[in-house]
Amino acid sequence: MNKVLRSWSQKRDKKQEKLGKVEKWLDGKYIDSSRIVDLMEALIDPGAKVVLEGDNQKQASFLSQKLLEVDPGKVHDLHMIMSSISRPEHLDIFEKGIAGKLDFSYSGSQSLRVAQMIDDGILKLGDIHTYLELFGRLFIDLIPDVVLVAADKSDREGNLYTGNNTEETPTIVEAAAFKDGIVIVQVNEIVDELPRTDIPASWVDVIVQAEKPYALEALFTRDPQNITELQILMGMMAIKGIYGKHQVQSLNHGIGFNTAAIELLLPTYGEQLGLKGKIAKHWALNPHPTLIPAIESGWVESIHSFGGEVGMEKYIAARSDVFFVGKDGSMRSNRAMCQVAGQFAVDMFIGSTLQMDCAGNSSTVTSGRLSGFGGAPNMGHDPRGRRHATPAWLDMIERPTELSKGRKLVVQMVETYGANKKPVFVDSLDAIKVKDESGLAITPIMIYGDDVTHVLTEEGIAYLYKTDSIEERKKALAAIGGVTPLGMESNESDASLLRDRGIVAYPEDLGIMRRQAKRSMLAAQTINDLVDWSDGLYDPPAKFRSWS
Amino acid sequence: MNKVLRSWSQKRDKKQEKLGKVEKWLDGKYIDSSRIVDLMEALIDPGAKVVLEGDNQKQASFLSQKLLEVDPGKVHDLHMIMSSISRPEHLDIFEKGIAGKLDFSYSGSQSLRVAQMIDDGILKLGDIHTYLELFGRLFIDLIPDVVLVAADKSDREGNLYTGNNTEETPTIVEAAAFKDGIVIVQVNEIVDELPRTDIPASWVDVIVQAEKPYALEALFTRDPQNITELQILMGMMAIKGIYGKHQVQSLNHGIGFNTAAIELLLPTYGEQLGLKGKIAKHWALNPHPTLIPAIESGWVESIHSFGGEVGMEKYIAARSDVFFVGKDGSMRSNRAMCQVAGQFAVDMFIGSTLQMDCAGNSSTVTSGRLSGFGGAPNMGHDPRGRRHATPAWLDMIERPTELSKGRKLVVQMVETYGANKKPVFVDSLDAIKVKDESGLAITPIMIYGDDVTHVLTEEGIAYLYKTDSIEERKKALAAIGGVTPLGMESNESDASLLRDRGIVAYPEDLGIMRRQAKRSMLAAQTINDLVDWSDGLYDPPAKFRSWS
Repeated sequence: MNKVLRSWSQKRDKKQEKLGKVEKWLDGKYIDSSRIVDLMEALIDPGAKVVLEGDNQKQASFLSQKLLEVDPGKVHDLHMIMSSISRPEHLDIFEKGIAGKLDFSYSGSQSLRVAQMIDDGILKLGDIHTYLELFGRLFIDLIPDVVLVAADKSDREGNLYTGNNTEETPTIVEAAAFKDGIVIVQVNEIVDELPRTDIPASWVDVIVQAEKPYALEALFTRDPQNITELQILMGMMAIKGIYGKHQVQSLNHGIGFNTAAIELLLPTYGEQLGLKGKIAKHWALNPHPTLIPAIESGWVESIHSFGGEVGMEKYIAARSDVFFVGKDGSMRSNRAMCQVAGQFAVDMFIGSTLQMDCAGNSSTVTSGRLSGFGGAPNMGHDPRGRRHATPAWLDMIERPTELSKGRKLVVQMVETYGANKKPVFVDSLDAIKVKDESGLAITPIMIYGDDVTHVLTEEGIAYLYKTDSIEERKKALAAIGGVTPLGMESNESDASLLRDRGIVAYPEDLGIMRRQAKRSMLAAQTINDLVDWSDGLYDPPAKFRSWS
Repeated sequence: MNKVLRSWSQKRDKKQEKLGKVEKWLDGKYIDSSRIVDLMEALIDPGAKVVLEGDNQKQASFLSQKLLEVDPGKVHDLHMIMSSISRPEHLDIFEKGIAGKLDFSYSGSQSLRVAQMIDDGILKLGDIHTYLELFGRLFIDLIPDVVLVAADKSDREGNLYTGNNTEETPTIVEAAAFKDGIVIVQVNEIVDELPRTDIPASWVDVIVQAEKPYALEALFTRDPQNITELQILMGMMAIKGIYGKHQVQSLNHGIGFNTAAIELLLPTYGEQLGLKGKIAKHWALNPHPTLIPAIESGWVESIHSFGGEVGMEKYIAARSDVFFVGKDGSMRSNRAMCQVAGQFAVDMFIGSTLQMDCAGNSSTVTSGRLSGFGGAPNMGHDPRGRRHATPAWLDMIERPTELSKGRKLVVQMVETYGANKKPVFVDSLDAIKVKDESGLAITPIMIYGDDVTHVLTEEGIAYLYKTDSIEERKKALAAIGGVTPLGMESNESDASLLRDRGIVAYPEDLGIMRRQAKRSMLAAQTINDLVDWSDGLYDPPAKFRSWS
């Protein structure tokens, strides 16, 4: 027996010792905001693994600003773990030497700066993740020493209320609280009685009332005014040629005008097709304002959400039959469980991309930017651990064998010339260059081609799950490639053969006339229309209120 | 605007109405156990979707027994949703007509009866799931109306303590509590102050103190006495030829003597190979007693667990540097997050099977039994949504291209003649027959062949990730197939070629001599040895105490 002689509660003892040192500043779990920098300096060791809560929407903005104020002589070389890098100070801490290494999921607006800082040697990149794998690693090999998170309210005991914007807060806190990490929470407000408890006090070490409420991004609001007729045409094709054809009953929609168009076409075009009650009943998505007309006209049975959406709070509270709402009347979002559901329990993922190669591989990474993945790859692949069957899933079986199983529908919806006026179909993805520039271990692909079942452009739909080879896949993409270089490789006889075999469908094959695709087809044409549909319950953020 | 005129809080209103009717029996959230059948009859509608907590280990056994006592004239045709069907009354409710439809993950000891009841038309099968997809569906299209769950303790307010055996209780409760489902909890004990809160009172509707503590299964205890020398040989090959070769740092082990042997060889054979600190550092697994020697000799940095294990409580409490332990000193297990971690965050899954076909597809389903999947398919596949890289994951890339990515190691470890003395390699899986007999939509495959990277038998290792075709995969399996019919198809020149190319390795290729594989290689040879390693902290269940 060759036993190691050591204490087996070193982390616990160290935590106790550290908390003992700051006890003088604490009133129960509470610390005055003026002392928070001192507290961080006392509790955070150099090199510590720190989760700073930057979610897709909610930001622990007070704590991130205060972290920037610590003395880099005392707190330095932190290994930061963040879902989303959204705020300047998330990167400023690297420039000051407070932080050294970064593991993250999504960088959005900071993507250019992340790439530059890696290049300059200021930031050492751990890895880029989807949300769910990053959450998983918090319990395996990225167990946090300290977590800095945000809640709406706390009570005297230290129980937390996170309400609509629960997102991943409980997941982050659980990983720390049960492995002797230190849990520091900023709250907007301290109250005697919470509407409900989202995180129990026994999981929390220190609470500070923030000087300003946490920052919250309205990421999922799309103004119907900006939906184009091309998007409407594509939306009609999606509804008839994909949702309806395969009986897609449960699904995820991401951010984007393409899917906003679909949401607004369900109550009009979907209704004309007689699809109500047959498709798009169960959703894993943020509470999109553009889904209000479909909800109000009875299309939607349930919505589980990753996070909240600014302005939707009152509407959600009044629609508890649809949303996940607590007894208190506010939603409980949960990014981890919604990602699980979006991966395993829904028939379809539909997304968009900036570039796609001829094999259907796609990426939103462009040169000089390291934008990360978020949740798309997690939902935009065929989850091979799934075993239950639904009509849409089974419909992906082309040549049944004794062992064949269904597939998740993974749909890419792109205009042949994207927002940047460049062809979406390319010979080689920019991501390959970015891999080399940033020293990544693998090329940052968002969705792999062999997971994609459908590609939809304004020209038509390529049913890639029916193709037999890379060559055929390329021909199918070319047939819907319009006047892009790839599209020009297609000729009428190829296309005609693919259409005959059901591998490609043009609008006319689906019985859709291009001139039908008018803005009048949208169930709501303005934000104001959405407010009307909601009986005045939807309260759009100021920047979307063009009429006021 | 074609709005549906309806109330949008029907489920909420109905819940309130129902709870109003039983208020007279309640003291706060508490009901006397003598009234629980009346309460169920009042709260559970015919046809309701009901989650009855049968986890892998913990059983809401008092509530399941009481559910069997309801009047089938009042409560009938329930749609039951259960992770695990473990107790006779889980199926008796179908025979009495109380329940009609079943969605489940794992049936274990009840697998024969499930198949028979489907055959007899007594039970209508929804679908068979892995754990994670079933949890996901609780938030999408299997949202529960009522959940019946078990906790250790509750306080006067109704907060719950689930401690070591938290398992999936919070996940089940969350799905109901935030969608106006009714949450009914059995507790072993009511106390003034909880050790900690695992589930907040505001998520709970009714609590009953059970007449007997909940049932708990010791599923993960393996007596080292029963480990054979063949298993030791295979364990040595696994450590040297897989774990060491690929630098597997994070992993999952399931139930089984094969992996118990590996756990007990790390501190001896692993140490000889100089692999300590290089492999097997981070684990997603239940607290296996056979891992104690590896922990004590400093191999293990962290363990996150799906559930608890009877007898390990004191040991876990004293090893908070390794396990996820709350401030109160008891572990927090979490099946949902551990499945997420086991899917996305670990390098390797290793499992066993009863049958494997020549393409590497495997199943534990045998004729007449519908045993379900549990968590194995969820961890035993390549998670295509993973984007972060580790050495083992990258090591699976055979022919690097610009877009190549790594793979999860999915290892199957089988003896060529299994426990039932039948060849493990078969031409056609019994699961195909079971599909037809039970009217399943797809054949119940546990692990698909194209996800398997390695197969290990007592003859050697087949590195399937290096094969180029189904034919080559079959030849590799034949080369390690021993005297099974498949094995007899292999000849020396085929095998020699595969060994030269590194597709197959025999013990001698790995520098392992068969005569080394002695029981004396095990770090513990009895349960008593495990207790000694644990400093007396491990307290084995009575049935494993041969010495007392």
